[in-house]
Amino acid sequence: MNSWGQLFRVSLWGESHGEQVGVSIDGVPAGIALCIEDFEADLARRRAGSRGTTPRCESDTPHIVSGIFEGKTTGAPLTIIFLNENTRSTDYSSLKSHPRPSHADFVAQRKYDSCNDYRGGGHFSGRLTLALVAAGVVAKKILGSDVCFHTEITAIGGSTDREQFAHIIEQAIAEHDSVGGVVECRVGGIGIGLGEPFFDSAESLIAHLLFSVPAIKGVEFGSGFRSAAMQGSEHNDCIIDGEGTTLTNHAGGIVGGITNGNELVVRAAVKPTASIAKEQMTYNFSSGTIEPLTIKGRHDACIALRAAVVIEAAVAIALAELKLRQ
Amino acid sequence: MNSWGQLFRVSLWGESHGEQVGVSIDGVPAGIALCIEDFEADLARRRAGSRGTTPRCESDTPHIVSGIFEGKTTGAPLTIIFLNENTRSTDYSSLKSHPRPSHADFVAQRKYDSCNDYRGGGHFSGRLTLALVAAGVVAKKILGSDVCFHTEITAIGGSTDREQFAHIIEQAIAEHDSVGGVVECRVGGIGIGLGEPFFDSAESLIAHLLFSVPAIKGVEFGSGFRSAAMQGSEHNDCIIDGEGTTLTNHAGGIVGGITNGNELVVRAAVKPTASIAKEQMTYNFSSGTIEPLTIKGRHDACIALRAAVVIEAAVAIALAELKLRQ
Amino acid sequence: MNSWGQLFRVSLWGESHGEQVGVSIDGVPAGIALCIEDFEADLARRRAGSRGTTPRCESDTPHIVSGIFEGKTTGAPLTIIFLNENTRSTDYSSLKSHPRPSHADFVAQRKYDSCNDYRGGGHFSGRLTLALVAAGVVAKKILGSDVCFHTEITAIGGSTDREQFAHIIEQAIAEHDSVGGVVECRVGGIGIGLGEPFFDSAESLIAHLLFSVPAIKGVEFGSGFRSAAMQGSEHNDCIIDGEGTTLTNHAGGIVGGITNGNELVVRAAVKPTASIAKEQMTYNFSSGTIEPLTIKGRHDACIALRAAVVIEAAVAIALAELKLRQ
Amino acid sequence: MNSWGQLFRVSLWGESHGEQVGVSIDGVPAGIALCIEDFEADLARRRAGSRGTTPRCESDTPHIVSGIFEGKTTGAPLTIIFLNENTRSTDYSSLKSHPRPSHADFVAQRKYDSCNDYRGGGHFSGRLTLALVAAGVVAKKILGSDVCFHTEITAIGGSTDREQFAHIIEQAIAEHDSVGGVVECRVGGIGIGLGEPFFDSAESLIAHLLFSVPAIKGVEFGSGFRSAAMQGSEHNDCIIDGEGTTLTNHAGGIVGGITNGNELVVRAAVKPTASIAKEQMTYNFSSGTIEPLTIKGRHDACIALRAAVVIEAAVAIALAELKLRQ
Repeated sequence: MNSWGQLFRVSLWGESHGEQVGVSIDGVPAGIALCIEDFEADLARRRAGSRGTTPRCESDTPHIVSGIFEGKTTGAPLTIIFLNENTRSTDYSSLKSHPRPSHADFVAQRKYDSCNDYRGGGHFSGRLTLALVAAGVVAKKILGSDVCFHTEITAIGGSTDREQFAHIIEQAIAEHDSVGGVVECRVGGIGIGLGEPFFDSAESLIAHLLFSVPAIKGVEFGSGFRSAAMQGSEHNDCIIDGEGTTLTNHAGGIVGGITNGNELVVRAAVKPTASIAKEQMTYNFSSGTIEPLTIKGRHDACIALRAAVVIEAAVAIALAELKLRQ
Repeated sequence: MNSWGQLFRVSLWGESHGEQVGVSIDGVPAGIALCIEDFEADLARRRAGSRGTTPRCESDTPHIVSGIFEGKTTGAPLTIIFLNENTRSTDYSSLKSHPRPSHADFVAQRKYDSCNDYRGGGHFSGRLTLALVAAGVVAKKILGSDVCFHTEITAIGGSTDREQFAHIIEQAIAEHDSVGGVVECRVGGIGIGLGEPFFDSAESLIAHLLFSVPAIKGVEFGSGFRSAAMQGSEHNDCIIDGEGTTLTNHAGGIVGGITNGNELVVRAAVKPTASIAKEQMTYNFSSGTIEPLTIKGRHDACIALRAAVVIEAAVAIALAELKLRQ
Repeated sequence: MNSWGQLFRVSLWGESHGEQVGVSIDGVPAGIALCIEDFEADLARRRAGSRGTTPRCESDTPHIVSGIFEGKTTGAPLTIIFLNENTRSTDYSSLKSHPRPSHADFVAQRKYDSCNDYRGGGHFSGRLTLALVAAGVVAKKILGSDVCFHTEITAIGGSTDREQFAHIIEQAIAEHDSVGGVVECRVGGIGIGLGEPFFDSAESLIAHLLFSVPAIKGVEFGSGFRSAAMQGSEHNDCIIDGEGTTLTNHAGGIVGGITNGNELVVRAAVKPTASIAKEQMTYNFSSGTIEPLTIKGRHDACIALRAAVVIEAAVAIALAELKLRQ
Repeated sequence: MNSWGQLFRVSLWGESHGEQVGVSIDGVPAGIALCIEDFEADLARRRAGSRGTTPRCESDTPHIVSGIFEGKTTGAPLTIIFLNENTRSTDYSSLKSHPRPSHADFVAQRKYDSCNDYRGGGHFSGRLTLALVAAGVVAKKILGSDVCFHTEITAIGGSTDREQFAHIIEQAIAEHDSVGGVVECRVGGIGIGLGEPFFDSAESLIAHLLFSVPAIKGVEFGSGFRSAAMQGSEHNDCIIDGEGTTLTNHAGGIVGGITNGNELVVRAAVKPTASIAKEQMTYNFSSGTIEPLTIKGRHDACIALRAAVVIEAAVAIALAELKLRQ
């Protein structure tokens, strides 16, 4: 399903080379001031442009087509669309017989009886994340200005040395290849009590949304996989005051599925962009042989760069849902 | 919320020291042969007994109280309960003023206005995972015998050397401490096409359920966090036949949120048990000072050991939901 | 699905002749005082006993098996079960070949591949409404004491003359037949703003739940079907003060899907009990012929009598859900 | 919430005087041929034009903006929008202080802190039903050509004599008044087994959607409220063959919440249009007095005429959801 949430319900649609990408958000409280400019900063973070990101340039202007009246949300569904402008469909003509490795081409054909829109990945395209970023902006409005997001790339191509990041990306570009990365999102000011035991734990909802984002292959909270290497006496976070502040934050701000008032810390592993210009092998379903494939088109050498704001948006959406449930 | 799923809907209830723990499962197709013995193997895997697990012994006998007639599921809700027998409530009397570090004690009090059942963690207790394991058994019946699960501990206390596992646990026991671990679940035979783009990706549903399990702090698929260190040319899985078999399986059997017919590979990071007998510091909400705390009671030195079958159950439940949606 | 609600989620299970009937309620706020006695009045209204109701006698004692601690709700799922005591399975042996007219026997067989528990209607039995009544009691606690329910039988067997009701029922009993009735539920004190435009209108949620109750074949609000015979100038309710009080209440307290602060008025049409001792014809699926059928067992001559409190419970559950969403 | 359905999920947005009205439908199977012309017949039935309907003329051309590729559905969300063209906002300027009787004006202000778009009813407008009709067309495609809908007005202004209908409407127009009506929808060919016991009974889902439609105040199945006046021996439908055909159809094709293979028969009571040009009284929230109100603008004298196809669409959507669950 392409909708998510009970009280902050986000419904996405669109295709990479279709007419538009859009999102309708249900559950937005009435009376929130909202204008096009509010979206600009986050959309800019997602937009192509810097080294390592695709040269496909879109204006990515949001159009709010419902749910706004006299500059404020009305309580009715808030719908935001983005028109697709810069599409070059001819790049994708051979995908039906030659599915791109680690792309959705093969599974989409099988799942949708070859009726899927394969151009540019169709509905599977990262372009859909535009809508997620827009929803994230609205989610942050609901969370309020006391909630602060700090999102950054903490690793690229295996290196955690930020001074190396640009170099690693340049090298990938030079080799017509791509690199993965790790994005860390820290959120302050979310308060105590978001989330529930078991199925709607804060971790569950956040991870559900993060794994909706294409290219995410791992999610961890606090010390995450490093927790598994620790002893309890080392991992346990000692409470030091009546507000529940802890001396350490191995829990990443969530215990028992519920936020404990400390900083939320979540990290996502972003795989290297599957579309690379470097020659690779794939199966030709027409001929039944394994053949070399060179993917043309415009692609990101390091999708983690643009994924950072998408990851932040996914976290914000999950937190807005949890806040409205309180 | 304590229920999950649209077509395979699992509702949990119970407390560690209450009368029972139970689960009602809606959406079970009619006509599946099911008896008490079917639950035995998985319940035994979860049950206490080996070194590193709590000496609290329960018979953990499942009672099927609805949804069965003449040995087969009827299509009506299938309800399974486990009576609590071996409870020692006196161990937990001081939790209200002295919340245990990295436990839900503090957040539960704040979220539930001090009305939560704090005995043994109450509804937050790992004992609730009994119900999850039972639901997992039913889920596996729905998936059918072609679907094979292989779940194992791949790391304990930071070591991936299985010969060291027993030693590491013994050491933790000796130090009145605990250790974390990593559990890997591999599933074969699930076929192509489970999952959907975006919000209900196979990864999203599986991770949602895994993060419902207490103590899980990280989830990754295929190469997971290692993917983030790879180049695209290294990470991409080359398709080698018309069935979609790939030469490598960095994707862990899921691309574009949809299973691709290869083995599903998911790993979960299990933090060290928060309850340790070793003295630790915590905040005393009555006196307003930080005090030493020694937790009495029966606890697991390495909860990852018992969590393995719970993790497998969570994966099975997510897959059953996805299968019924097809 | 046998669960309903997003924030006040009710999950039902059980069969007429199974071990128990139960309900688990998720979303109950912590801190509500609740004891067995709270259920007595509503359960008594549903219980068999008066003329026109089945002589099957059950103690119908609720057992709260989770979600309560020291006399208050904990915020965890509240689970209530009723053991089945007085079951006589031998009455129902021929239903497989001779489905009872206007009963679920035929459709249940077809839908569940003949695996349904056919004894006493199995999961389709009106006995499941015990669980609904219990959930209704909890819902009323959430609504608070300002919300008042007035539920009454306004018609039996076509007559609206209350003095005739007993006579009509006696006549049906004498003829081994049954009669239908109309139940009206009026609710005061629910305030302004419950419900939403379109899919979750107050009418939609209430009707959804009412049509879940066996034997309900019609639901109307305010003037209902009589509205269709009116002119706008006659039907429109004039607001007469700043609280939104209206001079008339043709709307039944709901406009635009949202409660307007006036009394909620809803009526449900209850069909005559399908099980009658009077001989009737049915199809014999074994012989392929239409044959006379005489249904043995214990049945209500006028199920509307006992349905009244069930209808009230259904309305209360819908209102609790709507209130928690506010 | 403005979305409905688990497997056929419909999300609506838009306002009467906003930029557009739209619907995104998730769960549409891939490979269904669909073109603009498929919508024409049903949209024409809803469109203004005949006596008794508003002279507001819109082209009501559907734009499919996602989910279609090469003339077929892709399996991705199918999104259809309708641009608003003919809006005259000046008609509605005084609604904030003078809420129209039996309109959502008052409740919308209170629920949405006076931030709702009040022009033309905003999100509460009947114009939103355009989107519902479009979704109904898609639902019918999923149901297939064996499923036949017959929808007709069976009463207007209290008369069931069709020869009187035009006359009654003319009279209402002459008096600047409006009249209500009853719409009956019969559906053949839906087969046995749609719906579930309790919360997702076929009646529950259909009624849920019907009560989402503005102006619906009553819903009944089969003999409905007349059932309540019958005896069991009269009401019970005798099965006469192995297909479950019944001699009578008092059940309206649903028993135990499940379709029994006979014709589905459902009726909805449509109240008279609340907007009438005839002078009526309302409360002036500015002055605190009750004052005469004359509503200007374009309105339907008998909204039941245009509601018929909306009711049919609501039934189709519910049936599509039920069919996909099978």
